[in-house]
Amino acid sequence: MRLPEGFTAGAAASSIKPSGRPDLALLKVEPGALWAYLATTNRAAAPCVLRGRALYQKRKTISGLVVNSGNANCATGERGMRDDARLAELAAGFLGVRADDVLTASTGVIGVPLPVAKIEESIAAVELTGEIDGFAEAILTTDTRVKLSERTLPGGARVVGVAKGSGMIHPDMATMLAYVLTDARVDAGELHGRWREVVNSTFNQVSVDRDTSTNDMAVLLASGAAGAVDPGAFWEAVRAVARELARQIAADGEGAEKLITVRVSGAADDGEARRAARAVVASSLWKAAVHGNDPNWGRILVALGYSGARFDIGRLEIVLQDTLIYRGGAVPFNGVALSQAMQAGEVRVEVELHEGAGRGEAWGCDLTEGYVKINAEYTT
Amino acid sequence: MRLPEGFTAGAAASSIKPSGRPDLALLKVEPGALWAYLATTNRAAAPCVLRGRALYQKRKTISGLVVNSGNANCATGERGMRDDARLAELAAGFLGVRADDVLTASTGVIGVPLPVAKIEESIAAVELTGEIDGFAEAILTTDTRVKLSERTLPGGARVVGVAKGSGMIHPDMATMLAYVLTDARVDAGELHGRWREVVNSTFNQVSVDRDTSTNDMAVLLASGAAGAVDPGAFWEAVRAVARELARQIAADGEGAEKLITVRVSGAADDGEARRAARAVVASSLWKAAVHGNDPNWGRILVALGYSGARFDIGRLEIVLQDTLIYRGGAVPFNGVALSQAMQAGEVRVEVELHEGAGRGEAWGCDLTEGYVKINAEYTT
Repeated sequence: MRLPEGFTAGAAASSIKPSGRPDLALLKVEPGALWAYLATTNRAAAPCVLRGRALYQKRKTISGLVVNSGNANCATGERGMRDDARLAELAAGFLGVRADDVLTASTGVIGVPLPVAKIEESIAAVELTGEIDGFAEAILTTDTRVKLSERTLPGGARVVGVAKGSGMIHPDMATMLAYVLTDARVDAGELHGRWREVVNSTFNQVSVDRDTSTNDMAVLLASGAAGAVDPGAFWEAVRAVARELARQIAADGEGAEKLITVRVSGAADDGEARRAARAVVASSLWKAAVHGNDPNWGRILVALGYSGARFDIGRLEIVLQDTLIYRGGAVPFNGVALSQAMQAGEVRVEVELHEGAGRGEAWGCDLTEGYVKINAEYTT
Repeated sequence: MRLPEGFTAGAAASSIKPSGRPDLALLKVEPGALWAYLATTNRAAAPCVLRGRALYQKRKTISGLVVNSGNANCATGERGMRDDARLAELAAGFLGVRADDVLTASTGVIGVPLPVAKIEESIAAVELTGEIDGFAEAILTTDTRVKLSERTLPGGARVVGVAKGSGMIHPDMATMLAYVLTDARVDAGELHGRWREVVNSTFNQVSVDRDTSTNDMAVLLASGAAGAVDPGAFWEAVRAVARELARQIAADGEGAEKLITVRVSGAADDGEARRAARAVVASSLWKAAVHGNDPNWGRILVALGYSGARFDIGRLEIVLQDTLIYRGGAVPFNGVALSQAMQAGEVRVEVELHEGAGRGEAWGCDLTEGYVKINAEYTT
C-alpha cells in the first residue's frame, strides 16, 4: 500500500526474532509533521511508552518512528531506559534527524534485555520507500497477517493505517500498535481531542483477552503535504481507517476462528453503549458460546447486566445474526437455523437498550481451545 | 455436618434438574433470627434477588430459606416475579411461617419459566433435620462437590457455612450462593457492616471467568440460640468459614484443574491489595500459564499493572511457589524446577508492592481446554 505524501518507510531483519523474519521497522515523515499520541495506562509501562509520553509533553511535531518486534523491552530496569534511548539514537542517525524527533516502540517478550547491538548492526539494511508493506510486516509478532486500511479524501489527501494485534504464542506479546498516517493538513489545536475520540470508539473497543498490554500505543501522524481538507470528512476517514484496523486486530486474536461484532444502540449515552458492547465482546462465556455456535442469549444478558450500562430487562432487545431472540423476554426462534447462521466468520450481536440515543460498537473473537493451547503449552 | 442450634434443613428432588438429582433445599431457623444479606449488582438481577433486596429493606429477622437449583428464574418477566412469590408461599406453608419470613434463591438456566408446580408436588417430601448435608447437595448445579466449612467458638457457639460455586455445563449457571449460619447471639447494629467486610475480602475475591451472575447472594443467619460470644472471635470465625468456602468455590471452577491463590502485601491500602490480587487471579493469560506450568512472571506483572494498584516496577517483588522470581527486575531461577513445582494442586503467588500496609488475597483457577469445551460444546 502506498504511503501518504511526505512519508517513507522500510524494514529489516535484525535477528531479534528467532525466526529471522523482519523485526525492525522505520518510518520517516517530512519536518513539521503534527502528531497525536495515546498509550497504555498500564503501570508497568515499558520504557518506550515512558519516553513517548515525555516526548509528547514537549513536542507538537515529530519526524520519525522506529519499531522493533520480538522484544518488548519491558521490566528491564534502568538498562531498559538506556536501551530505548539508544534505539532512538540509532534510528535518528539513520533517518538524519535528532533523537528527540523519533518515537520508539517495542513489542514482544517481557523481561529480556533488548539486544540493541543487533539493531545497530542491521539498521543500515533498511531501505526507505513510498510503500508501507515492509513496515506492516516487520511490526508483527504472532499476528497471522498484516493489518492495513486506507481512505482517500475528496481532493486527493489520504489516510493510511497500519497496526499489529494480539497474537501471543511467545509470552506477553499482546501489544497493540496502531499508526494512522495522513498527508492532510490538520488543525493542531483539535488533533489530540479528536484522536482520543477516534481511539475510544475503535481501538479501545477491541478485546481479545481483557489483558491490557504494557506497550500499547495508537499514534496519528499528519505530514500536511496534501494541503487543507474538510475536517468533517477527514475525521470520518480517520475513524473508518481506525475501525477497520480494530476489526482486523480482533479477527486475528489469539486462537480466534471468528470475529464477534457487538453494536449497542439506545443507551443513555455513547459511553454506556461502548461499555455495554465491550462487556459482551469480552465475556468468556459468550466468547465460548460463539465458538460452539450456541445462540445462548442468557450470556449476552448477563454481560449487559454487569457492564454498568442502564437498561430495563423488560424492554431490552437482542438481535443475533439478524434474528430477534429477546424482546423484554425470551422470543421463540429456530435454534438449529440460528446455530447454523453462527457458523459464519463474523457473528453480529445488536442490542437496543431503549434508554436514550447512545450508540457504540465493540469487536472481539471467540474463545477457543486454540487460545488455551497457545498460552498454556509454551514452557519458558 | 451438624447445623448450629436453632436451625433445621432438608432437601428433595423436584425434577427441575433433568438428572433427577436433589434440586430443592429448605432451611428453617427459630423466630427472631437476625440476617445480613448481600446480592449481585447485575442489572439483570433475577426475581429472587429483587424480592430479597426488598425484604431486607423492611425486615431485620427471617425464619426460612428456600433454594431451587436447575432453573435461575431470570429473564422470565412478570411471570418470574409471580413464580418467585409462589415459591416463597410454598416454602412458608411447609415451614409453618409467613411468606414474608422466607428468603428465596434460584440458580440454573436463564430465560426458562420456573416450573413451580413441580416444587409444589414435591415439597412435602422434604424432611427437616439437624444436618446440613442434604441442603448442601441440593443447591449444587454443575459443581463437582459440596462446599462446607465450620468453626466452633470458645463456649460452644458454632459457625457453619455452605455454598455452591461456578460450574456451568448448562448455560449460565455461574451463580454463587453462600450461606453462613451461626447460633451465636450477635449485635444487630454491626451485622450488615461486618458481613460486608467479610464478603469483600472473601467471596468477592473469587474469580472463575469474570462473569458476574444475575443470581449471586451471600447471606449470614444468626439464631442466637447459643448465647453471647466475643465479637472479635466470632467475626474471625465467620471470615475463616467464608474464606474456606471461597477457596472451595475457586478450586471447583469450571474445567479447573488447579486452585490459584494470590496474596498481595505492601499495597497503599487493603482495597488496592484486593484489586491487585484479583487482577492476577482473573487474568486469562496467567490462568493459561498456570495450566501449562509456565512460571511466566511477565503475565503477573502485566495484570498488576492494569489493576489500578499503585507500585513501582523497580521495587515490586513476586514470589511463585516460594521461589523469588522478580525483585525490581528479573531474578534468575531454575525454570525447570519451578515448572515442576507448579504441577501442584494449588499455585501460590505472593506479591509485595512496597507502597504501604495494605493486604489482600484472591482465589481463582487455571484456564483449561475443559473450560472452553464445557462452555462451547453445549448446544441449545
